[in-house]
Amino acid sequence: MDDEKILLSHGAGGLKTQRLIRGIFRKHLGNPYLQQELDAALIEVSSRKIAFTTDSFVVSPIFFPGGDIGKLAVCGTVNDLAVMGAKPLYLTLGLIIEEGLPMETLDRLVYSMGQTAHQAKVQIVAGDTKVVEHGACDQIYINTSGVGAVPPDLDLSPRRMAPGDKVIVSGPVGNHGIAILAAREGLKFSPPPASDCTYLSDLIDRVVSTGAGIKCMRDPTRGGLATTLVELAGQSGLGIKLFEEDVPVDPQVKGACSMLGLDPLYMANEGKIALVVESKDAPAVVHEIQKHEAGRGAGIIGEVVGDHPGKVVMETGLGTLRALHMLEGDPLPRIC
Amino acid sequence: MDDEKILLSHGAGGLKTQRLIRGIFRKHLGNPYLQQELDAALIEVSSRKIAFTTDSFVVSPIFFPGGDIGKLAVCGTVNDLAVMGAKPLYLTLGLIIEEGLPMETLDRLVYSMGQTAHQAKVQIVAGDTKVVEHGACDQIYINTSGVGAVPPDLDLSPRRMAPGDKVIVSGPVGNHGIAILAAREGLKFSPPPASDCTYLSDLIDRVVSTGAGIKCMRDPTRGGLATTLVELAGQSGLGIKLFEEDVPVDPQVKGACSMLGLDPLYMANEGKIALVVESKDAPAVVHEIQKHEAGRGAGIIGEVVGDHPGKVVMETGLGTLRALHMLEGDPLPRIC
Repeated sequence: MDDEKILLSHGAGGLKTQRLIRGIFRKHLGNPYLQQELDAALIEVSSRKIAFTTDSFVVSPIFFPGGDIGKLAVCGTVNDLAVMGAKPLYLTLGLIIEEGLPMETLDRLVYSMGQTAHQAKVQIVAGDTKVVEHGACDQIYINTSGVGAVPPDLDLSPRRMAPGDKVIVSGPVGNHGIAILAAREGLKFSPPPASDCTYLSDLIDRVVSTGAGIKCMRDPTRGGLATTLVELAGQSGLGIKLFEEDVPVDPQVKGACSMLGLDPLYMANEGKIALVVESKDAPAVVHEIQKHEAGRGAGIIGEVVGDHPGKVVMETGLGTLRALHMLEGDPLPRIC
Repeated sequence: MDDEKILLSHGAGGLKTQRLIRGIFRKHLGNPYLQQELDAALIEVSSRKIAFTTDSFVVSPIFFPGGDIGKLAVCGTVNDLAVMGAKPLYLTLGLIIEEGLPMETLDRLVYSMGQTAHQAKVQIVAGDTKVVEHGACDQIYINTSGVGAVPPDLDLSPRRMAPGDKVIVSGPVGNHGIAILAAREGLKFSPPPASDCTYLSDLIDRVVSTGAGIKCMRDPTRGGLATTLVELAGQSGLGIKLFEEDVPVDPQVKGACSMLGLDPLYMANEGKIALVVESKDAPAVVHEIQKHEAGRGAGIIGEVVGDHPGKVVMETGLGTLRALHMLEGDPLPRIC
């Protein structure tokens, strides 16, 4: 690229936009769809049932231990598709960039997106770049939208939950939230805590392929595991009982949370799933998840109950019951 | 809504986010897909061939004569799908909102999106809201992504262009650009110039249904008609010859442009299409477009030629030839 920094004219839709497309986007994301340079990509999806989702990413800082805003934007949308049981196929990419962003920063982020998309076996088929004046955004905001093919016979829904079903989480919670907080506020940890940011489509595909009785899946991002489970309880009309001692939390995250007065159950995750599974299949599902690198710390953390309809209660280490609610307020803005 | 202004917690994914979804998004955009509150919407598309596109909108000001950023965001993505010959079906909505935005402003914009989506016969099936600190964005930025069904037998591509084909535009050019410029800079015109912002899916559907020999279509937004035609010339490898006196420009836009030293051919449009059509069908296509409210000013403005491969030349009122290039620089940032 000729220019060292992003200029307003890179977003004007003219010559400089075209140079940006060819010099950076095609280089790192290259595929036949982008090559066409059409107003919309023409894709083929073999299933009539399609999952369609969107997410915008405004995380600060844009580089953090374990990832960056580009990797996060690809993984986040891939995971939203995967937890619906869909095979993620195609993504679009919408960038809003602050004038003056070093070209090298954009290049690194788009490279990261390309690598992540390649690993997650999705293609970024269409994109859009807007540039705003210095001060009208903070470096870069990224939107990804995605489509995936849903197997015709798969029915995942909180409405299928039943008392006795087990609640499983694929690994320790709160890592992304603590990693961002530490990076943003310059907290000194050694080693610095790393985000769990990763795509889960491979892991989910393996688990679903076992034919186990999976009722529904969610990725507990903003609002953390607690908020996700409260949503599931509300949508199913059933209760969920958690066992505090069974919820995996890394020692470093636990330490940071207790020091800062935060609750890991409300901290964002970017590489975890929560599943509700038929009781008889739960141990096999945990075993299958643990085979995958992103699921080593998986475990059963609770169960669906007929009591406490629409609510989540947690049995604490002391044997008392604590009601969990949705996240209120915003302890950590711009976490994703 | 309880709150008068957008708070960071409205973007935190917890209780306030849920209230925003139920109090504003469902109210104005309500449909069974949004109702499900899933990580991704499950949609059905009858065609295997799908058009998929994305656009982010950062226009300033967010309300302007003829539209607002919400209407623009729906129309822009609907039009990107429609010019590919697709029937626009489903949109996603990604919002980045500045802390402190009046709730009433968001309500008006989402209402406008709902109305426009209803008219354009698309459904907004999934969404995401992020809130950033005051000063980290300018009021609101909107991403829309869309999918549409492509008829299996339709083949629209600049590669199908041939010498002798006619170039048609659906109406006067430059209105959106001048409307935004006047509104932003407080230029005094009476009446104030209005954007042409509208959805073109109905109009395009009618034209395509005639079975006329349409080679390709584009919506000349950022970069204007000139940049769009230069792209078509480049992709087809053929020349395009325009006749300056045939390019429709409203007198008010012409006056404003000459006063400000701007060229209407490079000003953005948000409710126009450029078409390349077989010569014999061109008059009938113009006639069909003119029947539609958004196409009253349609006309043939040029032709595809074997000379000047990959280039656009314009025969001026004086009979001289002027080469047109892509937009360079950015005369009007944040036009869409």
